[in-house]
Amino acid sequence: METSVNRNGGKLKVFSGTANPALSQEIAWYMGLELGKINIKRFADGEIYVQLQESVRGCDVYLVQSTCPPANENLMELLIMVDACRRASAKNITVVIPYFGYARADRKTQGRESIAAKLVANLITEAGANRVLACDLHSGQSMGYFDIPVDHVHCQSVILDYLASKTISSDDLVVVSPDVGGVARARSFAKKLSDAPLAIVDKRRHGHNVAEVMNLIGDVKGKVAVMVDDMIDTAGTIAKGAALLHQEGAREVYACCSHAVFSPPAIDRLSSGLFQEVIITNTLPVAEKNYFPAHSSLCGQSVG
Amino acid sequence: METSVNRNGGKLKVFSGTANPALSQEIAWYMGLELGKINIKRFADGEIYVQLQESVRGCDVYLVQSTCPPANENLMELLIMVDACRRASAKNITVVIPYFGYARADRKTQGRESIAAKLVANLITEAGANRVLACDLHSGQSMGYFDIPVDHVHCQSVILDYLASKTISSDDLVVVSPDVGGVARARSFAKKLSDAPLAIVDKRRHGHNVAEVMNLIGDVKGKVAVMVDDMIDTAGTIAKGAALLHQEGAREVYACCSHAVFSPPAIDRLSSGLFQEVIITNTLPVAEKNYFPAHSSLCGQSVG
Amino acid sequence: METSVNRNGGKLKVFSGTANPALSQEIAWYMGLELGKINIKRFADGEIYVQLQESVRGCDVYLVQSTCPPANENLMELLIMVDACRRASAKNITVVIPYFGYARADRKTQGRESIAAKLVANLITEAGANRVLACDLHSGQSMGYFDIPVDHVHCQSVILDYLASKTISSDDLVVVSPDVGGVARARSFAKKLSDAPLAIVDKRRHGHNVAEVMNLIGDVKGKVAVMVDDMIDTAGTIAKGAALLHQEGAREVYACCSHAVFSPPAIDRLSSGLFQEVIITNTLPVAEKNYFPAHSSLCGQSVG
Amino acid sequence: METSVNRNGGKLKVFSGTANPALSQEIAWYMGLELGKINIKRFADGEIYVQLQESVRGCDVYLVQSTCPPANENLMELLIMVDACRRASAKNITVVIPYFGYARADRKTQGRESIAAKLVANLITEAGANRVLACDLHSGQSMGYFDIPVDHVHCQSVILDYLASKTISSDDLVVVSPDVGGVARARSFAKKLSDAPLAIVDKRRHGHNVAEVMNLIGDVKGKVAVMVDDMIDTAGTIAKGAALLHQEGAREVYACCSHAVFSPPAIDRLSSGLFQEVIITNTLPVAEKNYFPAHSSLCGQSVG
Amino acid sequence: METSVNRNGGKLKVFSGTANPALSQEIAWYMGLELGKINIKRFADGEIYVQLQESVRGCDVYLVQSTCPPANENLMELLIMVDACRRASAKNITVVIPYFGYARADRKTQGRESIAAKLVANLITEAGANRVLACDLHSGQSMGYFDIPVDHVHCQSVILDYLASKTISSDDLVVVSPDVGGVARARSFAKKLSDAPLAIVDKRRHGHNVAEVMNLIGDVKGKVAVMVDDMIDTAGTIAKGAALLHQEGAREVYACCSHAVFSPPAIDRLSSGLFQEVIITNTLPVAEKNYFPAHSSLCGQSVG
Amino acid sequence: METSVNRNGGKLKVFSGTANPALSQEIAWYMGLELGKINIKRFADGEIYVQLQESVRGCDVYLVQSTCPPANENLMELLIMVDACRRASAKNITVVIPYFGYARADRKTQGRESIAAKLVANLITEAGANRVLACDLHSGQSMGYFDIPVDHVHCQSVILDYLASKTISSDDLVVVSPDVGGVARARSFAKKLSDAPLAIVDKRRHGHNVAEVMNLIGDVKGKVAVMVDDMIDTAGTIAKGAALLHQEGAREVYACCSHAVFSPPAIDRLSSGLFQEVIITNTLPVAEKNYFPAHSSLCGQSVG
Repeated sequence: METSVNRNGGKLKVFSGTANPALSQEIAWYMGLELGKINIKRFADGEIYVQLQESVRGCDVYLVQSTCPPANENLMELLIMVDACRRASAKNITVVIPYFGYARADRKTQGRESIAAKLVANLITEAGANRVLACDLHSGQSMGYFDIPVDHVHCQSVILDYLASKTISSDDLVVVSPDVGGVARARSFAKKLSDAPLAIVDKRRHGHNVAEVMNLIGDVKGKVAVMVDDMIDTAGTIAKGAALLHQEGAREVYACCSHAVFSPPAIDRLSSGLFQEVIITNTLPVAEKNYFPAHSSLCGQSVG
Repeated sequence: METSVNRNGGKLKVFSGTANPALSQEIAWYMGLELGKINIKRFADGEIYVQLQESVRGCDVYLVQSTCPPANENLMELLIMVDACRRASAKNITVVIPYFGYARADRKTQGRESIAAKLVANLITEAGANRVLACDLHSGQSMGYFDIPVDHVHCQSVILDYLASKTISSDDLVVVSPDVGGVARARSFAKKLSDAPLAIVDKRRHGHNVAEVMNLIGDVKGKVAVMVDDMIDTAGTIAKGAALLHQEGAREVYACCSHAVFSPPAIDRLSSGLFQEVIITNTLPVAEKNYFPAHSSLCGQSVG
Repeated sequence: METSVNRNGGKLKVFSGTANPALSQEIAWYMGLELGKINIKRFADGEIYVQLQESVRGCDVYLVQSTCPPANENLMELLIMVDACRRASAKNITVVIPYFGYARADRKTQGRESIAAKLVANLITEAGANRVLACDLHSGQSMGYFDIPVDHVHCQSVILDYLASKTISSDDLVVVSPDVGGVARARSFAKKLSDAPLAIVDKRRHGHNVAEVMNLIGDVKGKVAVMVDDMIDTAGTIAKGAALLHQEGAREVYACCSHAVFSPPAIDRLSSGLFQEVIITNTLPVAEKNYFPAHSSLCGQSVG
Repeated sequence: METSVNRNGGKLKVFSGTANPALSQEIAWYMGLELGKINIKRFADGEIYVQLQESVRGCDVYLVQSTCPPANENLMELLIMVDACRRASAKNITVVIPYFGYARADRKTQGRESIAAKLVANLITEAGANRVLACDLHSGQSMGYFDIPVDHVHCQSVILDYLASKTISSDDLVVVSPDVGGVARARSFAKKLSDAPLAIVDKRRHGHNVAEVMNLIGDVKGKVAVMVDDMIDTAGTIAKGAALLHQEGAREVYACCSHAVFSPPAIDRLSSGLFQEVIITNTLPVAEKNYFPAHSSLCGQSVG
Repeated sequence: METSVNRNGGKLKVFSGTANPALSQEIAWYMGLELGKINIKRFADGEIYVQLQESVRGCDVYLVQSTCPPANENLMELLIMVDACRRASAKNITVVIPYFGYARADRKTQGRESIAAKLVANLITEAGANRVLACDLHSGQSMGYFDIPVDHVHCQSVILDYLASKTISSDDLVVVSPDVGGVARARSFAKKLSDAPLAIVDKRRHGHNVAEVMNLIGDVKGKVAVMVDDMIDTAGTIAKGAALLHQEGAREVYACCSHAVFSPPAIDRLSSGLFQEVIITNTLPVAEKNYFPAHSSLCGQSVG
Repeated sequence: METSVNRNGGKLKVFSGTANPALSQEIAWYMGLELGKINIKRFADGEIYVQLQESVRGCDVYLVQSTCPPANENLMELLIMVDACRRASAKNITVVIPYFGYARADRKTQGRESIAAKLVANLITEAGANRVLACDLHSGQSMGYFDIPVDHVHCQSVILDYLASKTISSDDLVVVSPDVGGVARARSFAKKLSDAPLAIVDKRRHGHNVAEVMNLIGDVKGKVAVMVDDMIDTAGTIAKGAALLHQEGAREVYACCSHAVFSPPAIDRLSSGLFQEVIITNTLPVAEKNYFPAHSSLCGQSVG
């Protein structure tokens, strides 16, 4: 009978999935905790097995798992971790998702598509999570995809701190949105950089089989251009934009993002000399092979 | 016993709430149907009473109700209509919401706020709706607030058709977003106007107690500026933007929006001579008192 | 990271909606608490905005809001308050609804009606409330409309205490139900008044276009008649009943109710001289304009 | 693969539980249908086994089962029938519950009670029912306990038709409610009997260990008293009431109810000579042993 | 107001249903607690009434109730107990179900059957239970029928301890599964008996109207055979198996099970001389009439 | 408006995921249908994109997708397909899962594990599926993991037909379960092979660091042994069992299974000469590289 009596009394425990163990470690260290013991393995057929190796009965459990590539693997691992915690009588389960995969699939742009970001939110809730902590969601509306509480943490200050260390004169700066969808984000970033001016890259395609045209709205001549986005995936958009900025007379181009997805050929594009530096955080694991040479640097700070 | 046998066999019926009966009538006419008979009244204490006055057993029911001001009244009326249909054994209940109130409350901009747009989506689902048809939602992400299917209808073509009748030379046109949040919408509108160029009004406030500064990104000199937004509420933003456009040399300024909320002092601002015309649709009822004079016109077409 | 750690540890906080702030204040005072800081405002278009101005993370939150007229406004305000609390990680949310609007819409009296009382219960639950505290629900069955716990508080004792202060001889008393639906309530009231006898006003209509006939079942001659109801709305029923009681020889007529809705022309009817006094509680706000003259008095005690 | 294709195309099928097979048969006959084949048995340990013996894939299924005594057995049988239909891909499942057990447990009369009527409604919905058809629910509010549609069928007309055949002069009639909770029901019955007058039996207990006192409100002298209730269980209340009516000079006393639960010692009390006749319907099975002698008669008509 | 404030602070309370009060008493005693006061009664018509007679507000409540025969009665009683606790604001409700009725109905063996074990799991969850504690479920998969946590307690050690006291040489032992479905259970049991060998009774029927043939796989000659099952219901299978074991030369036959359902004619079969002893636990109440004579003994230990 | 009117009228459409397109094609062909057009792609970062390329509004949609390795990829693909169908107003969504991944994770064998099979069932239901069709689920109890209807299709007959073509004398046959968990399945298989006798491989491990011992219960000397399982994954168990059978004198050994998962080194083990033939179905795609040589053959028949 005694197995069912809670001796943990709301104790806080942090467990890490396999997506970004370095960040989990950093978070636990920051909170003065050891990571909880957990056995996560894959069977020969690729199915995931999870066993918590310490009791969570009555605990406040935090599960840290970015749903970064391989997104489906990492998401299923998270869901199975949640299920294991729920069935082991955890009191509260908070999923900490530094990078929330499928965040861009947040609406139908054509008919008969899925809204995968909402689907993922539903799956996480259905699995038994009680609360979510996420960083720089692609759209703020995604918070509403959950009916459980969402703590939305912003990484901009980490990047701004690093930028400040560059001591670029504020008169020289211009903040650039790499596309029309990101203007509000760039605007908010500019505001914190002494209200720097704004420019927007506007990509257009004149009919089928006609090459797309890059258009700059605003002025970058002689300026240090800081391109801002929430994530860099294949780096196609930001690299084309950077080329345009150089062509329009920008003195230097920086790229900043919270989420460094860096799908191929991102590294090639980012290390091709267009950028003074590429400034990122560590919501996704920073692979050593991605430490690309010259004109770039990494800002591997905790999301805290 | 016979009362429970369905004789309606999936028949389609349209009922109108009291928010915008003219539009409901137009929709029913367009579909070749009579509006269903329904008794909607308010008791002395303001509580709403709804009784369907014809059977909906086994029917595909469409309830047309904009949740425009008074938003809370119109929303509760819609929910009670849905409840009445569900309890009367309707087969499917589609709520047609030409203007979706609370759409702007679609994320937390500060801590401890509600996300009322999601709450409203949940309430509609909980009441028993099976499907939603909405026009020009403030953010596309709101579609994901529902797990029931949403048909999202765009009104741009109605407005574009009317603009086309103006025969403004496409070289003269510039499409203007009244703020940084609406650039993507303006961009999509511009694309359909022979890929017209884009400009953005960027409003900034330099510290507390300092007047806000209007900034134009892009060029409007000598052009016909078409300002585009999804809705005009008090018209403050669009009127200030229009003043800036005139100041920056725009030849003429048009304002376009799908949803003419027109809270005071919108009419004053819109009829103050800044606009050549204000082009709207009838997702909200068009009050006769709002037929403001000179330099303006109305485009009261159906949302179909 | 620290934002997500609960420092409030189950602390109790009370917030007031705008429906009946005087009562909320009284409740908080009675509990030895300050009302929590909350910003509730209405935009120009009438949509409601709510922001909690202090943390509720991990707290036991009590939201006090009567859903009295304007019922739809007050209900939506309550739902948005609940949503804000849920999204701000409150531990438990108890809605305190001294007057529960739509309580009379608790069943279908004809086909194809809504059961709005159940709908409202569902909406409150869906929004995220964990518990309900309500006073003198129109029907006890409404408690079952919720699957979350309901604490049902009775106000009779407040009214009985006041009546006792009148020192009317118990032999002189008769308790009168103003209609056939309220007999059980009147009976329970009579029991506590030294088991006073009961009379019932039975209103009948003999066919269409025939004036309704008031019928008295039981005897009131020479007695002090105390009419009891859960609420007085337009006061039509109770005023007609009081006229009948005078006609049947009642010496004096008192009216008692928990919920003073007082829709027009209630004040006119109640102050027309039929009643010795009208005894109410303050579950609804007591407007100063309702302090009607002569032969009446108010009993503004707390619902505790 | 073919097993999954629906060949039944919305066909209507009626199955009977074991509670009241005679009524199920009558209903099926009335609808021109054969009862569906179903195997319902009890294992040696009393657990219920259900197997549908014909396909219901894609069918509109009606399950007829009163949850009369033994209520728990009959309810579980119904739930298992619903589960079997749901798992067998029925399109719609309507439960027809002529007598709804636990209907009186529809509110808490003291603290820490269950509201079993709501619990039962939830269980039926959870099991997978899509619609309910019930007769003369103890309280109309119980309809709201379901969010699935409820068709509420009244049996009064069956009883009124039978009474009409007695040709009692309408001047001679008085309708009597056996307690204060049933006055509204009695009033509605009286209205259909040429607006007959009303009397109420008011049972009181003056403190502990003091015998209860029966009180009559209204007048029955020389009249034919028709006592009306929704159900007669042990017949204690109605028998005591009838004794009072005789004592107050009633000429004859009839008892009418929709649901003849007749728990012991109901038959003894009803056949003791107090009643001219006891008029019932067959929502519960009418056991032959209940055909009690003299001064009584049965009205075993279908609930249709 | 004070009624709603929790003074119990997560206190643990145990209540017993009427199914197996002796075991509940034993559990409470083991935990150093008194059983909570609760009024459970049956009305004349067999409906169940439950009232908790002490506050559970904010408590961790444990409800002990085997859903043994009469299964439907005991299950409904449990559901109503849960409902009462939920409505009385219990913090957590754990249902302790030593014997889980309907456990064998855990899959469809033919088309159009119910899966009653899942239905029961859903009903328990729907009623409001937060956690389940069950002993030796018929199939481990049943744990997955719940999404709330399940603590699965095994009784094997109780039985093994008792067997150990018999000091049978491990070389003499053979563990026998009475049918092909129980081999894994028998295997796990054998492992703990010094890895005793295994035999299986394989019952076959060669066509209709042909007597069934009992087949033994494995060898029992000269051995002490210990037949193991999770439950013994009518004892038909185990008695036939025991006869075969004797015929195949077993020296002695023991029967062991966790759940002694013992539906007639179990006692006759078990006391017919086939078994040296029948070893059971007290998850079901052990009726004195079941203390059958000679060659048998009872092991009434607590499930702890 | 017309977009919302259903013109498909319950039309049946079949779409295939990318897991096993050959089988989907076979199923569609068998039903006389073309596979529906669907665009399923993976972005550079591995996230899945799904767009239905024909309308499913009002259709009965069948989605064919085995959740075979890579299980997480295939499962997410299925969930996103379901979401796309639901949002596109499909009338009914049936997921056809010939091989149901995670089926073995159907219970907790130790504390603090997940029950992934139930989790997956919940995810499928939450995504919006209305019905499931699955083949040879690892445990029949898994059907109960769904509350939506499950059609459980058995593949044994396909394998039995193929075995019959071998014309092995029934006196020579023995059916072997490769472990104690599969005896019931083997027994059911044996029954259809002229009631062939049964043997069981019983694998034991005598303490830590002691090699496991294979034990045969039953007799196979001189017989043709047919080993039966629901799936073969790495083929470790079945290969060790086959070696034991040879050692115990079996003349020939066949292996049969419904689901050929064949994770490495399954092919090596199966093609090592232990098996006369390995008989499988095509619920998983049959990779050409798996056509292993000599003493083996494949039975790639449809699951119909």
